[in-house]
Amino acid sequence: MTVSTVEDAREQRVRLLDRVENRLDGLLAHERERWAYVDPRAAAPIGDIAALVSAGGKRLRPTFCLLGHLAAGGSPTSSLIVDCAAGLELIHVGALIHDDVLDAAETRRGAPTAHVRRIREHNDNGWKGEARRYGEGTAILAGDLADILADRLTAGLPVQARPVWNELLTEIIIGQHLDVAVAAESLVDPEISRWIAVCKSGRYSIHRPLLLGAAVTGREDLAPAFEAYGEALGEAFQLRDDLIDAFGDSDVAGKPVGLDLEQHKMTLLLSLAAEQDPEVRSLIEKPRWDLPRLQDRLESTGVGQVVEERIDHLVDSAVGALQGAGLGAPWRSELTALAHEVAYRSR
Amino acid sequence: MTVSTVEDAREQRVRLLDRVENRLDGLLAHERERWAYVDPRAAAPIGDIAALVSAGGKRLRPTFCLLGHLAAGGSPTSSLIVDCAAGLELIHVGALIHDDVLDAAETRRGAPTAHVRRIREHNDNGWKGEARRYGEGTAILAGDLADILADRLTAGLPVQARPVWNELLTEIIIGQHLDVAVAAESLVDPEISRWIAVCKSGRYSIHRPLLLGAAVTGREDLAPAFEAYGEALGEAFQLRDDLIDAFGDSDVAGKPVGLDLEQHKMTLLLSLAAEQDPEVRSLIEKPRWDLPRLQDRLESTGVGQVVEERIDHLVDSAVGALQGAGLGAPWRSELTALAHEVAYRSR
Repeated sequence: MTVSTVEDAREQRVRLLDRVENRLDGLLAHERERWAYVDPRAAAPIGDIAALVSAGGKRLRPTFCLLGHLAAGGSPTSSLIVDCAAGLELIHVGALIHDDVLDAAETRRGAPTAHVRRIREHNDNGWKGEARRYGEGTAILAGDLADILADRLTAGLPVQARPVWNELLTEIIIGQHLDVAVAAESLVDPEISRWIAVCKSGRYSIHRPLLLGAAVTGREDLAPAFEAYGEALGEAFQLRDDLIDAFGDSDVAGKPVGLDLEQHKMTLLLSLAAEQDPEVRSLIEKPRWDLPRLQDRLESTGVGQVVEERIDHLVDSAVGALQGAGLGAPWRSELTALAHEVAYRSR
Repeated sequence: MTVSTVEDAREQRVRLLDRVENRLDGLLAHERERWAYVDPRAAAPIGDIAALVSAGGKRLRPTFCLLGHLAAGGSPTSSLIVDCAAGLELIHVGALIHDDVLDAAETRRGAPTAHVRRIREHNDNGWKGEARRYGEGTAILAGDLADILADRLTAGLPVQARPVWNELLTEIIIGQHLDVAVAAESLVDPEISRWIAVCKSGRYSIHRPLLLGAAVTGREDLAPAFEAYGEALGEAFQLRDDLIDAFGDSDVAGKPVGLDLEQHKMTLLLSLAAEQDPEVRSLIEKPRWDLPRLQDRLESTGVGQVVEERIDHLVDSAVGALQGAGLGAPWRSELTALAHEVAYRSR
């Protein structure tokens, strides 16, 4: 399907994304009703998922999936790609619910996280057992259920798209595990940190969704261009994440900032700072981090500027990778616009 | 595929189950090697899954799935059913890893649970952050990964088997959530407790796996007989579980016993006891349970005997449901033998 103008391209994408929202809302409403019929409590995990879906979010993964599909010449009225993009968002919601337990995060998308809400519910009602176990346990189940609903939505994936889907799912887990392990061991290893960033953000959020869209459409030939675009933009995306967490404002970000340092996460930003500044290195090699001093030092080393420059460079690479890939000009333009949105966002 | 003797039937099932073991071992070895290549830490979640798979377990769900397939006339050399049964076992492993976090269980299949092993690893190494968060967090990820590998194994499910698979996965979560909610609220409601038992054990462990096997083979007509068999046997299975936890020996069971009471779980056994004995009811309506007294009272009410009789009755119903379903005599005999194994097991 070719489009002649950027406006047409944008409209097709927006229209499909609307259908993704409707698909998510419809599926969750249906499941919620069905389980509430058994018992109101049975619908609670669906409620946790729905709360996060309706709280907004960037819909980055569905957007890249739809764009990969459309840019590859896929039908602008395909139900399969709508389901697939909706499945990606549910996988993301499941990963967020679990990550928030792993990170002990208090807020997400501007509201208390699922486990925090459940812990409060337990405390407010004076229920039996440990509130933390109840809250985190029910959040584990809600995240599991999000994955299951995603599995259902993607059951119709064509065989050539399966490997992309499988890799995407596996990489989220492996990347997340490495992230936790590196933080626990306080490893200072820019090599592993870069791998984690590439895996968790680049591939998961951008490259694999794009490729998934193209693979559903049978255009695996676009893989090299989408990979180069996705890996560069993914690193930029992760660096922006790191910048927001290190120097951002939680009101703007809609989530708490400073968590990476608190959790001793060896972010890409931190490993760059450690590479260029021995004091940062010595601060993070201590068994307990002196957070205010580390924060000050990060600001005075100017690592923020270094990271901004690297982001500029990565965006150029990403956009450059689209040249000569055989994509229509309107789609190239859409992908370029999206690269800027992703790399220069404030939340 | 018809078989003429019970021995042939048994041999076909055993042979397929061997292939399931090989499939699981092969997949896990392959994934472990692939991720260890990135970093040894990256393979850790696979290691957690593999540890639980190789620690044994009853392989109940794969067995029922294979038996459903074979009894329905499915090919004794089908790779699809092997993958499907292996997927069921991985779903089970993922559910166990998560359940053990939810229940704060210390041992499983005779060994420390995944999160307990990881908590110890964290403590032994003096790593940063909270050991519990690390241990439970990495166990969440390992459970997630087991589900993802199961998703991969079942990608080839024929369309008529999808609804069965979807329901099975969803019911595990909803049942588990209700179980946690009922325990927290210390609800004494035999109706809900029965629903949970039917959902978590009957359907999940027996009825849906059988139906899945039959559906893969295109024999949805067997659904009513398999449903009646599975729901009755499933309740028996759950009652046996409750008996083992309430009155069993942890050395024999290979896992700690008494956990249900400790976690304030409103088991089917407990709700039966509460129905027939006002003192049990008043003991479990207290905000904190007096465990030794409750234990004593359960023993003196003779609820164990009541439950044994109910199990006998349920096994008779299950076996009776197979009459006239158009199953070959050797398969009926296999299903009968399995019903006895499940209902009268000691672990």
